[in-house]
Amino acid sequence: MNRIEHIGIAVNSVKSAANIYEKLLNTTVYKTEEVGSEGVLTAFLQTGVNKIELLEATHPDSPVAKYIAQKGEGIHHIAFDVDDIIAEMARLKDDGFILLNDEPKPGADNKLVCFVHPKSANGVLIELCQERR
Amino acid sequence: MNRIEHIGIAVNSVKSAANIYEKLLNTTVYKTEEVGSEGVLTAFLQTGVNKIELLEATHPDSPVAKYIAQKGEGIHHIAFDVDDIIAEMARLKDDGFILLNDEPKPGADNKLVCFVHPKSANGVLIELCQERR
Repeated sequence: MNRIEHIGIAVNSVKSAANIYEKLLNTTVYKTEEVGSEGVLTAFLQTGVNKIELLEATHPDSPVAKYIAQKGEGIHHIAFDVDDIIAEMARLKDDGFILLNDEPKPGADNKLVCFVHPKSANGVLIELCQERR
Repeated sequence: MNRIEHIGIAVNSVKSAANIYEKLLNTTVYKTEEVGSEGVLTAFLQTGVNKIELLEATHPDSPVAKYIAQKGEGIHHIAFDVDDIIAEMARLKDDGFILLNDEPKPGADNKLVCFVHPKSANGVLIELCQERR
């Protein structure tokens, strides 16, 4: 497991949150992208080697919409960069972690991703994330 | 604002969470430290250039105890590395962010820190964090 690739923050409006995080981090959004499979509109900001991903639900059944309904706006997940997502998934499964998908799936920002259940990690939703080659 | 310095995770037991995060990140805790002023016992793990800080409340009035009572275990704050905490505090104050302390204060892991109110940042508690020289 390598550096934190990004932190995902669930927000009501990417446009309004981007305005706040651009001021906070003293930078600008470098990419916005809709991920249909996750039901989210995303905006990315770079800070050092790390990224902040703002997440707005695009429909009421989106996991992000459910998260906000239950907990309000806030940190939704931590994504860690990995070199070999298949190997890391096997390693974690062997160690008893509950994976939310059996195969890596396409994520935002040109990644292959897999989620680990928050039950496995003290309430934190963990994402593994490998750059697509 | 530079890289993410660490992510703070509120847990019921640092010892039990350290066991889980050592497996998850495939590394070992490199430091544990009690921060009396914040009422927490901490354990740090390194992952790439970033750190995970596990936080256990040492008394019932600790902010971490209150956080867990309200929301359960989970991500408590994001800390960003800054070169000049005084300058960043002034910049954020000018931009309308609500700072939780007027002066930098000593934090864990040899840092000067300042917190930004979650109201200012879409429900996320932000920490600025400068290495003490």
